[in-house]
Amino acid sequence: MLGAIDHVGVAVEDIDAALKLYGDALAMPLVHRETVTEQGVDAALLDVGDSHVELLQPLGPDTAVGKFLQTRGPGLHHVAYRVDDIDAELGRLAAAGMRLIDAQPRTGIRGSRVAFVHPSSTGGVLTEIVEPTHG
Amino acid sequence: MLGAIDHVGVAVEDIDAALKLYGDALAMPLVHRETVTEQGVDAALLDVGDSHVELLQPLGPDTAVGKFLQTRGPGLHHVAYRVDDIDAELGRLAAAGMRLIDAQPRTGIRGSRVAFVHPSSTGGVLTEIVEPTHG
Repeated sequence: MLGAIDHVGVAVEDIDAALKLYGDALAMPLVHRETVTEQGVDAALLDVGDSHVELLQPLGPDTAVGKFLQTRGPGLHHVAYRVDDIDAELGRLAAAGMRLIDAQPRTGIRGSRVAFVHPSSTGGVLTEIVEPTHG
Repeated sequence: MLGAIDHVGVAVEDIDAALKLYGDALAMPLVHRETVTEQGVDAALLDVGDSHVELLQPLGPDTAVGKFLQTRGPGLHHVAYRVDDIDAELGRLAAAGMRLIDAQPRTGIRGSRVAFVHPSSTGGVLTEIVEPTHG
């Protein structure tokens, strides 16, 4: 089952400007920053309670987030739910008829295991599940 | 300060179909349903951990969510952060130069006090702050 909202992903054109906005005006502390080459993004995690805002600046226009920015502009990109066992949850979602972007988990930010469900299955909401790194 | 992600708001064309999707495939329990006339929506809250998904079906095409659906299609609409003292937080956001849609809190779902920050101040993210009903 989906245990919590792990984070919301936000597509940004300039991650440094976005970090200043979220750090200063919204007073969210930066806790992690990483280039996730596989996903084509410079990413930053900010703390809000037990959840995060994940800022995503694309590494280029042909990345998924780059294409999103061109068609939709900056803004909310996806929502991610935390799970204890991503393999079990992926099996459950597939059995429920959901269209998976990732049939197998891949490595996300901070060594987490992540998978995306296609927005065509979820009412237009790009939906991610995340199993955080243990230990 | 912003204490947690209270909910993500999702614009839907058919709230009953969305409730079935979120209830069955995503296994999120429905905890509240309400027509919020002031905001022009039929709304439903589903539990996910200590947060919620808020499904929003517009009451008509001229409502804010109705216009959103026509231009963007169904999907992520806003993110809401929980605060202890919405009046203090609104003052802090205004002092930080944020453009407020609501200079004063108004009544949201389940008797909460809510206010929206304009997406032009927040990198395209419609951002809500929520002070839940106390007691």
